[in-house]
Amino acid sequence: MSKTDKDIAFMRQAIALAQKGRGRTSPNPMVGCVLVKAGRVIARGWHRACGQDHAEIDALKKAGTASRGAEMYVTLEPCFHYGRTPPCVDAVIKAGVRRVVIGMVDPNPLTAGKSLRKLRRAGVEVCCGVCEDELLQLNAAFIKYMTTGLPFVTAKIAQTLDGRVACRGGDSKWITSDQTREKSRGKRFLFDAIVTGVNTVLMDNPRLDVNGKPLVKVVLDSSLRIPLKARLFDATADGQVILATTRKAPAALITSFRQRRVDVIVCPRTDSGVDLGWLLCLLGKRGLINILVEGGPKVIGSALKKGLVDRLHLYVAPKLLGDDQARGSVSGLMPAKISRAFPLRFLGVEQSFGDLFIEAEVLHVHRNC
Amino acid sequence: MSKTDKDIAFMRQAIALAQKGRGRTSPNPMVGCVLVKAGRVIARGWHRACGQDHAEIDALKKAGTASRGAEMYVTLEPCFHYGRTPPCVDAVIKAGVRRVVIGMVDPNPLTAGKSLRKLRRAGVEVCCGVCEDELLQLNAAFIKYMTTGLPFVTAKIAQTLDGRVACRGGDSKWITSDQTREKSRGKRFLFDAIVTGVNTVLMDNPRLDVNGKPLVKVVLDSSLRIPLKARLFDATADGQVILATTRKAPAALITSFRQRRVDVIVCPRTDSGVDLGWLLCLLGKRGLINILVEGGPKVIGSALKKGLVDRLHLYVAPKLLGDDQARGSVSGLMPAKISRAFPLRFLGVEQSFGDLFIEAEVLHVHRNC
Repeated sequence: MSKTDKDIAFMRQAIALAQKGRGRTSPNPMVGCVLVKAGRVIARGWHRACGQDHAEIDALKKAGTASRGAEMYVTLEPCFHYGRTPPCVDAVIKAGVRRVVIGMVDPNPLTAGKSLRKLRRAGVEVCCGVCEDELLQLNAAFIKYMTTGLPFVTAKIAQTLDGRVACRGGDSKWITSDQTREKSRGKRFLFDAIVTGVNTVLMDNPRLDVNGKPLVKVVLDSSLRIPLKARLFDATADGQVILATTRKAPAALITSFRQRRVDVIVCPRTDSGVDLGWLLCLLGKRGLINILVEGGPKVIGSALKKGLVDRLHLYVAPKLLGDDQARGSVSGLMPAKISRAFPLRFLGVEQSFGDLFIEAEVLHVHRNC
Repeated sequence: MSKTDKDIAFMRQAIALAQKGRGRTSPNPMVGCVLVKAGRVIARGWHRACGQDHAEIDALKKAGTASRGAEMYVTLEPCFHYGRTPPCVDAVIKAGVRRVVIGMVDPNPLTAGKSLRKLRRAGVEVCCGVCEDELLQLNAAFIKYMTTGLPFVTAKIAQTLDGRVACRGGDSKWITSDQTREKSRGKRFLFDAIVTGVNTVLMDNPRLDVNGKPLVKVVLDSSLRIPLKARLFDATADGQVILATTRKAPAALITSFRQRRVDVIVCPRTDSGVDLGWLLCLLGKRGLINILVEGGPKVIGSALKKGLVDRLHLYVAPKLLGDDQARGSVSGLMPAKISRAFPLRFLGVEQSFGDLFIEAEVLHVHRNC
């Protein structure tokens, strides 16, 4: 029943397979699976996209009758419930798999250990909890979503080394190098939706798109100041742009946007405008579990302050503005003491086309929906 | 005459030896040397400290008569002139060394290629220019000093991820972790003198010392506001504290400090106080060639603006202040456009006890004295 070095090695292969689905599986988790017989991999599977085969089924189909008596390594507990597909746990038992090594228990309350028990009752040897640290990272968004109902939120900032995003006169083009900006746009693929503020739309008029994926674009715009001709609306499908507004927005304008098949959501208001917590809850209910916030200092500061951000993606250019009047990258936190500063943990840092790319975790207790 | 892989490998050994002298050789350069016979190292030498044997002499003494017919790998051209020690070039010839492989030409105009010619005329085979990129880095301070008369200046900053050094109320203790601050104090060993502003002394009352080295401590204090009891004066030898002031300082106060054997230098004034360029020139003339500036945002900004800083050592804590009124790490540059931002190049970045340590090169043309 215990795990061995061999188990860890095969689980790592399953994790690598899981990662092939990155950016495509929401609201499902990324899952990878290998089937092993006599110490050799006989089939590999992974979850390619929501609605397609789960990783276990993908591997079992490839192995066919050879799966009888095999060992299965799967990054997440097989599902117990009927969803878009029948329960994997039954397929695993039916295929005659001898031993199942599971990376971690499924945080989905519909499964959450039930498949482990069902497998054991069916006489399958089960080992659970292999490479859990890696899997907590891999499944961070899915775990948060399952346990709180809220999406996993990454805030993106591009700043100078001294923490500025614009000169005192407003000039902000460009902080980072062309290649870094391209790389950062490419990372949008990892997310289901991008949230930005209307000021960013008015200032930069971005398209906020990425090749190969229909991203949902959400604009925080409490009084609907966004122009009808914003590039954001170019070449996007119905419902792909969400305008998150409040009762401050003129009703006629709301109607006009809706007639153009733009999804206008009238959200509750807070001091800082649209109630972002409420909105994120709603996005979560729509199955958008990986959210990128590409906003200005106010939007990012307000999201951080409300405990809604999980991670920072920070691009730092080798430049100094050295100006107290130049716009800082985050506003509205304002602790009185350094000991009350907003706490982060650095996950990684790398040089990127002349700039730095820093990934940091926000240290806070998750809110619930 | 040409260089080979073998030459590069032995030169790398000589570079590693040179680095053993780091922090001790000023105003001399770090130099390392290996003597090789039949493909094997027979002696190693390096310059340990100003006034002690040069690297070549150190190696030749160790090899004794075995140096006859040997190959010498030395990171810098042997000296041609009488200084504190007789010319190395003569000792190399006298020892009967067959071939000399030199990393780079000595930028000191008293040598600058003359030893190369003397060696060749004496029948010694000479190869020059091996591992030059590494050596330009290793000797950066010495090269700048020899070509401009100015010391090599590193500015140290400790800031939050959003570029702040203090809360709006002034609280600044502490930005980085205990271990990072200890590490950063340890790095003072690499320098000959530390320059700070009187505001830093008034606010933090630092000792600015380091174990094992009598650092020169320079305070920029245009009107002599430093208290007689500042910790800076604790346990320091005569002349080890320099107060760089201007004519604004009361004459009686100047006399009083001088009576306590504090070196008070009355410098020319600029808009921002003490003329730092003038002062650095003077420090250079005193043989202080590696200077650390540990100042506040004004001192650092002003030194950067005047083109006096060569490198930044930036410690970044995983914290956000998110406050437009919190003190930024650099002030007084104020470009109107991002394209006119103060340009740097990242040399390296690493995680350091929870914080980041970033080393950046200032991209500018050197001034002369």
